[in-house]
Amino acid sequence: MFKYRNVLISVYDKTNLDKLAKFLIKKKFTIYSTGGTSIYLNKINIPFKEISKYTKQKEILDGRVKTLHPKIFGGLLANPKGKHQKELIKNKIINFDLLIVNLYPFEETLKKTKSHQKIIDMIDIGGHSLIRASIKNYSKITTIIDPSDYIKFETSFNSITKNKKKLAIKALEYANKYDQKIIDWLNGEEKNKYELRYGENPHQAAQARIYDKAFKQISGNKGLSYNNLLDLDAAIRIVFGYQKNKNNIAAIVKHNTPCGYAIHQNQKIAFQNALAGDPISAFGGIIVLNNKLSSLTAKLISKGFYEVVAAPSFENDAITILSAKKNLRIVKINPKIPKYESKSIFAGTLHQETNNFKIVTKKITGKEIKKNLNINFYIHVLKFVRSNAIAIFDNNKLLSQCGGQTSRVDSLKFAIEKLKKLPKNKLKEHLYLISDAFFPFEDSLKLIIKSKLNITIFTPLGSINDIKIISFAKKNKLNLYEINHRHFKH
Amino acid sequence: MFKYRNVLISVYDKTNLDKLAKFLIKKKFTIYSTGGTSIYLNKINIPFKEISKYTKQKEILDGRVKTLHPKIFGGLLANPKGKHQKELIKNKIINFDLLIVNLYPFEETLKKTKSHQKIIDMIDIGGHSLIRASIKNYSKITTIIDPSDYIKFETSFNSITKNKKKLAIKALEYANKYDQKIIDWLNGEEKNKYELRYGENPHQAAQARIYDKAFKQISGNKGLSYNNLLDLDAAIRIVFGYQKNKNNIAAIVKHNTPCGYAIHQNQKIAFQNALAGDPISAFGGIIVLNNKLSSLTAKLISKGFYEVVAAPSFENDAITILSAKKNLRIVKINPKIPKYESKSIFAGTLHQETNNFKIVTKKITGKEIKKNLNINFYIHVLKFVRSNAIAIFDNNKLLSQCGGQTSRVDSLKFAIEKLKKLPKNKLKEHLYLISDAFFPFEDSLKLIIKSKLNITIFTPLGSINDIKIISFAKKNKLNLYEINHRHFKH
Repeated sequence: MFKYRNVLISVYDKTNLDKLAKFLIKKKFTIYSTGGTSIYLNKINIPFKEISKYTKQKEILDGRVKTLHPKIFGGLLANPKGKHQKELIKNKIINFDLLIVNLYPFEETLKKTKSHQKIIDMIDIGGHSLIRASIKNYSKITTIIDPSDYIKFETSFNSITKNKKKLAIKALEYANKYDQKIIDWLNGEEKNKYELRYGENPHQAAQARIYDKAFKQISGNKGLSYNNLLDLDAAIRIVFGYQKNKNNIAAIVKHNTPCGYAIHQNQKIAFQNALAGDPISAFGGIIVLNNKLSSLTAKLISKGFYEVVAAPSFENDAITILSAKKNLRIVKINPKIPKYESKSIFAGTLHQETNNFKIVTKKITGKEIKKNLNINFYIHVLKFVRSNAIAIFDNNKLLSQCGGQTSRVDSLKFAIEKLKKLPKNKLKEHLYLISDAFFPFEDSLKLIIKSKLNITIFTPLGSINDIKIISFAKKNKLNLYEINHRHFKH
Repeated sequence: MFKYRNVLISVYDKTNLDKLAKFLIKKKFTIYSTGGTSIYLNKINIPFKEISKYTKQKEILDGRVKTLHPKIFGGLLANPKGKHQKELIKNKIINFDLLIVNLYPFEETLKKTKSHQKIIDMIDIGGHSLIRASIKNYSKITTIIDPSDYIKFETSFNSITKNKKKLAIKALEYANKYDQKIIDWLNGEEKNKYELRYGENPHQAAQARIYDKAFKQISGNKGLSYNNLLDLDAAIRIVFGYQKNKNNIAAIVKHNTPCGYAIHQNQKIAFQNALAGDPISAFGGIIVLNNKLSSLTAKLISKGFYEVVAAPSFENDAITILSAKKNLRIVKINPKIPKYESKSIFAGTLHQETNNFKIVTKKITGKEIKKNLNINFYIHVLKFVRSNAIAIFDNNKLLSQCGGQTSRVDSLKFAIEKLKKLPKNKLKEHLYLISDAFFPFEDSLKLIIKSKLNITIFTPLGSINDIKIISFAKKNKLNLYEINHRHFKH
């Protein structure tokens, strides 16, 4: 190990570099360096060779082309044996067997300036290329990008072979993350990493990577938790995920499930209706509104206990009213629903299009629905109830939903059961029941008949029993509509 | 645009290169090229300059150092105006304003050879560095990495400025993904991309990136669907996610929720018990077993309809029996549960530790539980029921669960309600009820008392009403155990 004892050092972060350099000199390394690193080594009286003297190529273009030279890359890329070594001798190229490199952190650049050209200027080319060349030859060259690894390097100097691969992977991951940040920036999607208090449960550590422009918390004495973010995600998709609507939309989400939803011309009434569906579950929930939050709505919200209230903008008075509640997080959102979503599984990752396609309904049998009913928006809400989802609405709002069940009949039974919490006259109104997938048997329809509800049923078709189901509905004078797509959410 | 008309071409994929090269000659470009691209251009009679003649540096180290030269990188990195241009003239360096590069696909290398050194040799350094240098200067240089973009480049030649940034982002993403594949390979975690038939629903396009070694489908006339993978993920975490157990474990998952679970010394009985909990929901479910699947178990499985059966290994006869069912996917799994999990949300991504910590239970009041009860394994199963989860077990198996509810009382009510599907004498046995989070009020305990079940309750504490809850349990002679952690799954 370290047959050649030539090290190339080019670092932005000079933490512990003095100790390391002294160690390397003691171990008879020849240090090759350039730029800021050279200035630093000079200052601390460490002998080194200036790269431009070795390559006989003066630094040009404000230092952009310093190490990008065959005499450097040859020394990194050559095989340790065979004809490559002869070529090196012929071309007066030395072998490197150690590379100490780190880059100016791209996120720091973004913090320091908003100038596009200055940011571009800070993108590292040479150091990044050195890392990649070095890791390609990791059996010969040890690559260290993290100053906190210097001490371990010194103490395990004689057994470095064991760590070379690990250090190479770490270096390449470092270079790769560096570029990912550039990609995010070029896409206008800079993300910041946040340590969260914990994950879904207090014993699980958690982090978030959040787009700069996605939202801004403007009040509340605690930040958003992991579960707040998950619930906010569902609520924002419920409110903004389907086509635009000039009316006011209010959604309340609890444990990642919609427990309140309403559309109305008037925002306060929209929220009032959303709350009326299941006021008990709404306790501690997350509210999202699609329009500027008015002080009237704020007054109503301030009467209950909620974890988060989010809207694209707020009347000044609304902020005053809501921020009086110190535990309530007020969040200004910039709702952009991504077209794709992903999720890690044991075997890798799954990626799929967001479930946001045009909803079309078609009457199969029974009475026509009201013209002004926002049925497509109601079906959109159902997408956020877990699979084997059933949701029941009245003319104005979500009344009941059930999902997360392994049996559709159970979901249906429990969704109807939950209606009993509502005032009795509610059950005499005309209601709307939506199923996320087809009814495989008549048993579900029988349950609906048994409930004596005055109801219109919306369901996708696709069962081998479709014909039976439809003729059963006809015979029993049920109002049955077809939905064009299934809406599972596992 | 294209002031200098110097293009550097270095491509592995030569699709459409002939047409593009002719177009560039027509547009008075000087082509600089090397290696395989030069040979190709020669063959089709396209005039070009050999890079080594321009740089006056012969190709060394089997072509590893061809383009890594100041005369190339200076031409890419120099500002289009000001003192950089003077330096270029002084150093006899030309400006490039077009870069056509693509790399030998790393996944192809992995398919072709298992030799570590050969794979390392194929890692591209020069081309990758060219891309990065070029995109840094994208206002001057257009970078094209995808042959399918050549035609658009030609047709929009006079308005290229609009596309430069988009092409730069595409190029950097390409280079970044190339390195990610190297990182995965170095980590021994090569992933392959699969197009899935569709996502959670037929109208959603979907892909999977799957670790090579995670599983292998050995039978079944269709591949695993998106929902199969999601369900398999849950089932594998249920069976293998907690500490090892020498007994046989069987889990059945439907719609991402456990509907069957049992532990027993005998595998066939473990599966039989898992199935007995909810045989109706098990229809079309996913079965995972923790040990070699025996032919006896296979016979029993073959009597029902399931989408997937997975185990770490199979008796030969078991495969014969199961593979007779053409629709059943038989999957050999290599169960490694990742320590972290991630999920995209509207605002970025969430990352958290897998919920797999030591489970500890402590009696608060009432009778001791049986010594041989696998209560920690039962609590582990509960983690996979959606939040406000309640699960009920007997001595041997999962009997009922309910989650995905916005109210804990509803979950409890419905979990008890589902028990009614079981044979009546079952309800007289001693049962075990687990809650994923604390009971905030006494109402839940009152419901349990009303059910007249002979039951021991397991729940985390942490409510401000803990003292009330405990004293209520004592007064009513309930058997109450504390669990050390909450287990939400939103």
